[in-house]
Parts: sequence; C-alpha cells; structure tokens
Amino acid sequence: MGAVPALAYARANRQRFLAELKEFIRFPSVSAQPRHAQAVKRCARWLAGHLRQIGLDDVGVVSTRRHPLVHGSWQRAPGRPTVLVYGHYDVQPADPLAEWHSPPFDPTVRGDDLFGRGACDDKGQMFVHVKALEAYLQTSGALPVNVKCLFEGEEEIGSPNLLPFIARNEDLLAADVAVMSDTPMLGRGRPAIHHATRGALYLELELRGPEHDLHSGNFGGAVHNPLQALCEMIAALHDPNGRMAIPGFYDRVRQWNAGARIRMARAGPSDAQILKDARVRRGWGERGYSLYERLALRPALTVNGIVGGYQGPGAKGIIPARALAKLSFRLVPDQDPREIDRLFRQQVARLKPATVRATVRTLSGAKPAFIDPTHPSLGAAAFACRKGFGAAPVLLRSGGTIPVVSTFQEVLRVPTVMMGFALPDDRMHAPNEKFHLPNFFNGIATGIWFLDALGARPRLHPPPVHVVGGLAAASA
Amino acid sequence: MGAVPALAYARANRQRFLAELKEFIRFPSVSAQPRHAQAVKRCARWLAGHLRQIGLDDVGVVSTRRHPLVHGSWQRAPGRPTVLVYGHYDVQPADPLAEWHSPPFDPTVRGDDLFGRGACDDKGQMFVHVKALEAYLQTSGALPVNVKCLFEGEEEIGSPNLLPFIARNEDLLAADVAVMSDTPMLGRGRPAIHHATRGALYLELELRGPEHDLHSGNFGGAVHNPLQALCEMIAALHDPNGRMAIPGFYDRVRQWNAGARIRMARAGPSDAQILKDARVRRGWGERGYSLYERLALRPALTVNGIVGGYQGPGAKGIIPARALAKLSFRLVPDQDPREIDRLFRQQVARLKPATVRATVRTLSGAKPAFIDPTHPSLGAAAFACRKGFGAAPVLLRSGGTIPVVSTFQEVLRVPTVMMGFALPDDRMHAPNEKFHLPNFFNGIATGIWFLDALGARPRLHPPPVHVVGGLAAASA
Repeated sequence: MGAVPALAYARANRQRFLAELKEFIRFPSVSAQPRHAQAVKRCARWLAGHLRQIGLDDVGVVSTRRHPLVHGSWQRAPGRPTVLVYGHYDVQPADPLAEWHSPPFDPTVRGDDLFGRGACDDKGQMFVHVKALEAYLQTSGALPVNVKCLFEGEEEIGSPNLLPFIARNEDLLAADVAVMSDTPMLGRGRPAIHHATRGALYLELELRGPEHDLHSGNFGGAVHNPLQALCEMIAALHDPNGRMAIPGFYDRVRQWNAGARIRMARAGPSDAQILKDARVRRGWGERGYSLYERLALRPALTVNGIVGGYQGPGAKGIIPARALAKLSFRLVPDQDPREIDRLFRQQVARLKPATVRATVRTLSGAKPAFIDPTHPSLGAAAFACRKGFGAAPVLLRSGGTIPVVSTFQEVLRVPTVMMGFALPDDRMHAPNEKFHLPNFFNGIATGIWFLDALGARPRLHPPPVHVVGGLAAASA
Repeated sequence: MGAVPALAYARANRQRFLAELKEFIRFPSVSAQPRHAQAVKRCARWLAGHLRQIGLDDVGVVSTRRHPLVHGSWQRAPGRPTVLVYGHYDVQPADPLAEWHSPPFDPTVRGDDLFGRGACDDKGQMFVHVKALEAYLQTSGALPVNVKCLFEGEEEIGSPNLLPFIARNEDLLAADVAVMSDTPMLGRGRPAIHHATRGALYLELELRGPEHDLHSGNFGGAVHNPLQALCEMIAALHDPNGRMAIPGFYDRVRQWNAGARIRMARAGPSDAQILKDARVRRGWGERGYSLYERLALRPALTVNGIVGGYQGPGAKGIIPARALAKLSFRLVPDQDPREIDRLFRQQVARLKPATVRATVRTLSGAKPAFIDPTHPSLGAAAFACRKGFGAAPVLLRSGGTIPVVSTFQEVLRVPTVMMGFALPDDRMHAPNEKFHLPNFFNGIATGIWFLDALGARPRLHPPPVHVVGGLAAASA
C-alpha cells in the first residue's frame, strides 16, 4: 500500500502508457479552429472513457457553448485533503504545417522525445497525473487523498467557458489545493515549480481603408494603405526603451524591492540560459531589467500575427482594403485585463489616422496570479520533485498565462501547484512540439509522490492565498 | 474597303466577340502562381489559334523560362507604317476568392459589365485590338498598315522574359509605333490617352528572429519579434509629410514648373474624382501635391502584403520566427529602379535592429516612361477616340507601370500609344474585376479608326522619343 508499488506499476507499464498518450495526441483537438470542433468532442469522449477505465468515479463530459469539459473524481478518503487536478486536452493550431518533420497529429518517437502537437502542451503533461492516479489506484485500490479531475478543451482560446463553470460549481469543485502541469522546467534534470503567472489580454486590431483592394499603380501615393497604417500604429505602441507607449499602462505594475529581485535572480534562469532556450543570439525588451525579469515581472506586448494584402508567391500590386493584427499583452500584478483593454482602445483612438477605420476585438483576458511560495502544498510538490527527478526544484515565476489559476484563487480560494515537466526547447505552440519521455516517466513518479506527500498531511494549512488585481496584496 | 465596313462587321458580331472574350477569360492564366503555369500555357495556345483564325501570318508561341509569348503579324502593306500591338494575357491572382460575387474564371455578364479576372486587365482590352484587326481583315481582305502583335504572359510579374526577348529580336520587332490598351479612361464616355507611366520596383523584405516560433508567454518581452521589428522598419520608411525617408530617394525626381503643373491639373482628374474612383473619403500622401500629382508626378511606396505569425481564426500566442513584407515602389522620371534598389537596401541595413536578420529580394524593376505628347501617333489615337467614343480624349499621365513601354523606347526606339478602355471602378487587381461592355465595343471601333488613321499617314515622323533614366531628357 502506497507509493512504492505504484512506482513499480508505472515502471512496468511504460510502453502501454506511451501508446495511450499517442492515442490521445492523435485527436487534432485544436480549439481555435472551428473545423476541428468534432475532433475536440471526440477527444473529450476518449478522455472520459479513459478516466473511467483507470477507476475514477462520477466521470462525465459537460457540454459548453463551444468545447466540452471532462471531469471525474475519487472521494473515498474522508478527513484527507482534496486535490483538484487540472489540465487541458485542447491544443494550439498546428500551422505552419510545412515545418513539421513528422505530421503533428501522428505522434512519433525520435530518440528520447515524442513529437506531436500537444505532446507537451498539455496532453502529455496532464496524462502524467492520470497515469499517477491509475498506478496508485491499481496497486493500492485507493488513493491517499481525495481527487477531483477537471480537464478543459478551451485553454488555448482563453478558457471562456471554464471560468463560468467554476463559478457555477463552487461547491462541487471545493478542494484544498489544485495541481497542474503546464509549465516548463529549468532544463533537463532541473525541475521547477512556478508560483506566479502573467495575465493575458488577446486582441485583434483591424484597420479598413478602401472598400476593395486598389491597384497600387493607379492609387499608390494618394490613398492611405491600411497595412502601412497598421505598421505605423504597431510601431507607436513601444517606445525606444522597449516600454509600452500606452498612457496609464504601467500605473498598476507592482514594483519589487531589491531583495526580492536578488532572490529571483538567484533562483531563475540567467540571460544566457533564456537566450539558449529561445535559440536567439540577443535579448530584447524593457531597459533596466534582466531577461528573466522581463518575462516574469514585467508586462509585454506580442504581435502574434498580421494578415493583410497579398500573401501568395511573387508580386501583386495592391493597396489592400484591410489589415488585421493579432496582439497579445502579458500582464503582471496588479494589472487588470479589463483596464488594459480600455487603455489600449483609448490609445488606438489616439493613434488611428483619419484615413482608416479601426475595430478592436477582445478575444480573451486573464488576470495575473501569484501564489505564496511558503504554502505547504508547494513543500509537498518540492518533496515529490526531489523523489521523481532526484533534484530539488527551483521556485520560479512563469511568463506564461494560465487563466484558471487566478480563477481557482478568486472563486475556489485554493492555491495552484504549478509543477511542470516541459523542457524549454519542447517547442510549445511551435512546429515540432515534443515531450521528453524521461520527463513523462519521472513526472508520473513525481505525481505519485505528490499524492503520497499530500496524504501524509491530514489537513493542509488554510491556504494563505494572495489574490492579485485588487482583492488582496501579496508579499514577495 | 476601309473603316466603315469593318465597323459594320464589328457591330454585327458583338455577341460572338463577347462569347470569345469569355472563352479567353476562362483560362486562369495567373502568372504569379506556379500552380497555374499549365493554364497560362493553354491560354497562350488558345490565343495563338485565335490569331491564326482572324487571318494573321507568322503566328507562334515562344517558350521562355517561365510563361510563353504569343506573336503574329500582317506585313503586306509596303511603304505603310508598322504598328506593334502589345498586350498581356496573364492576369493577377484572384485572391481573396471569398470576395468575388461570381467565380473569377467563370466570366459573368451583369448589366452592362462583364465580371471576371482579366476581363479588363488585360484580356478584354487586348482583345479589342484583336477584334479590330479581324473586322478590318475580314471586310477589306487587308489592313491599312503593317501590324506586329506581341502578347506576353508575364506582365503581372514584371515581364522578366519579355524584355530580353525584345532586346534579342530588335529587327523582327522593328516598328514605327506601339499601341496598347491597359490603362484607365477618365470615366464613362471620357476617353484618355496616357503618355507617361511610373516605373516600379517590387521587393520582398524578410526578417528572421528565433529559429522557430516561440511561446509568447515564455519569451514575450525578452526576445525581439520579427513581425514587430518589420512594422517598426516599415513605419520608418515614411516621414510625417508622407515622403519616403530613404536618403537619396528624391535626388533624381524631376521637378516640374508651374506651367506644366497647371496644364496637368487642367487635363487630369480632380482630387474629388480620384477619391470617388477609389471609393475612399480622404486622400493621403506627400504634402504639397494634389492627388493626381501624387499619382503621376511623385513616387510612392506601397505595402502590398505582410505575411507573419498566426493567420487563422482566434488566438495563437507566438513570437513568429519570421515576417515578410511585399513592398513596391512606383518611380518617376528620372529615378532608376536599380539605384532605388541600392538605396533601399542601404536604408534597410541602417534601420535593421541587431536582434533580427534581414533579407531583401528584388522581384522586378521597371523604368518610368515618358512619351512626347506632340508625337503624331498620339494625334491618330485622339482622332480614333473621338470617332469611337464621340468625345475627345484627355492626355494623362498614369500612376501605373507598364515595363515594356520604357523597353520599347530604349530598345526599339518607338513611342507607345497608351489608349486604354478601363474604367476607374473596373477593379483591376481586385475582386470583382469587370469590363464595361460599351467600352469593349467602342474600343473595337476606336481600334479600327486608329488603324485607319495611321494608314492615312504614309510615314510617321521619326519618333521624338524621350527616354528617361539618364539616356535623354524629356520636355514637359
């Protein structure tokens, strides 16, 4: 009874676990692209079937306005803590397809890596917990804690239906702590626990000029080009110091004292490491901050895509009728996506030339989150990482966004343990995404030890959650 | 014998002429897109067959490195002038396809207009001359002048193989004057002859940042985004007065005196007319010039398209690995595309941040052209327009580019009569391109009268050609 037989079971079943993960990846569950909506549904049903198979109770698929949620639980450990396991089975679009060395939805092992869209983000990482639960249940016939699983199909589009679902099902989802694996490690053999995430605000800025594309010879020089105007507006959003040139943008950005910055620098990756992970030679960004600080403490604006004018090979001489940019802000405590949305729209109105019409569409928003690094659940996670990977984890802040973390804080009042098994070069969101298989297997061991460590604490301390965005202040 | 029976023949055969033009438009002869290469070839063969059918001699299809040329001639009028009829049977890409009200390559008549890609640019307009020749030949058994036809399949990609062909076949193509119809009228019932075209330089500017797309959460704010850098570089190419911010760019731009500008203003379209044609409310461009001057006397830079990052629906959070802009300059006397290419590359090297790699690719270049407005062939064309349209034509400068015009000047030493039958709202290069059918039929009458008027002059004056770009100076 306990972790040891579960670990032996997991070791004995590695090949089957890998085969099941491949099956899971084969569903092209791209949440952003309507043509994949049926695949997202099929993937949800497969996942629910799998949860039943490993021995969870109350397994169900909940329809939403768009993509379904999958849940399951095991609540037969009265008096023990309850852990809410979160993950997402939807994936990013696979484009540009031509750059994949093997098809994105035909998972392929090369060396120690499993390649495929979602291999790492987040199918592979959420499967770690599913397999840890299976190993424990199949060997001990019980779990050391109560478990509720909540897996969504809309993380990559900003979780529009998960957040209202959580708000409506507060009692059903009540827990002591949440856990998820959707963040990177510091490197091979260097586990990391994240205790902060940036918020996000995803927008589309569309400019319209002439009613239809115009011949650039017949009108070039006399009619404003919305694509040029878009470039000019985007260029004006940063100042020469790499700061956002949007009035009010920094008003709520929390300042950290020298001590906090030094502790961060000690724990976090160096500039050189970040450049190596990104495979670029030079850094960029806001003057006065290290690269890790730019990613973790400071907000950022990314132009994710521009669509405008002729996209094909060779030449086409047109003034396009419209141009569209996909922009995303990453936000830090205590910025609020709704306020930034308002400030951005005001700035667009200021920057927009009279010669074009502008439309701003808000696709999604998420608050930044900050978890007290001294919470005991983080101690249990650190213990589990040491057992699973043979190395103590570093405590990091993530530059990424996991909208549900701030919702878990605000609605369920639980902290989230972000214990991720991705490598920095796993190409999350990019072609040739992969999952390092030793991390899959060590992750499962870590998951088993995490359940074990939580179960050893009859009650977790009431979680000292620090909600950002005005509700409460966090220490650093 | 003469114009009158030819006119009657053309009137009697309108429906057949229209049916034949539709057949011609059905070939998707898009020169820029490799997948249409076979359609371009089939279109060339169809056109050659048609030229044989109407009675031309020496008809042939000449292969080039890419798309074939079609030629034919009728040279049985010794002592009479020789006219070189130029046109292009290739067309612009049809995208964005979703915006067409009827399929681009399924020509459709609605009201007085024939809709289809190439209906106007240039299949419909070059067919005007083919049908004028047919009408004359079929009714008189002869033409009043010698005629050489030269139709290319690469105009929309910058005529890369036509220009060397002309240089190699100087004697074969020797003529007294060239004629083409690939320019707009001033409006319905308001014919126009163009005597100047802008040059062009079509470039791709590609920026590369990280080796692959990066997660915008994990790296946003610390790695320079090539798409943002591209916006910043493009924004820096114009100054606040709408002038190109490229050192040396205006050094060779010819200055026109007040008299020339007043004469131009009198003949050319008003600002209000240009805005109406473009269907936009406000003009834009270089301070200190009317809209017509900005189009005809002043150079311009157009961002024809930008490709970078995520292009699909919804959100994708990435720093793209690369970004590409399709840029075209329109050039005026005495700018030279090779010199502007060099100045642009120098400016890119100055503007490029150290965080990205830049590549400039030159797709095509063409010199601006200027024809002496007093040349007698323009008089013949003006007479023909009055007969064909019942109105005297205005003499205009075109903002567009027809690379072959400067080649005809430099290599063959012949002026080109640009007698166009397009309406400003015919949507050349845009979805729902159309040809106004009364212009097709009046154009054929004009073509007949043009042949007639040229034949009435036993010798055209030796053409006082003014080559721009340093070879000779033009008066204005």
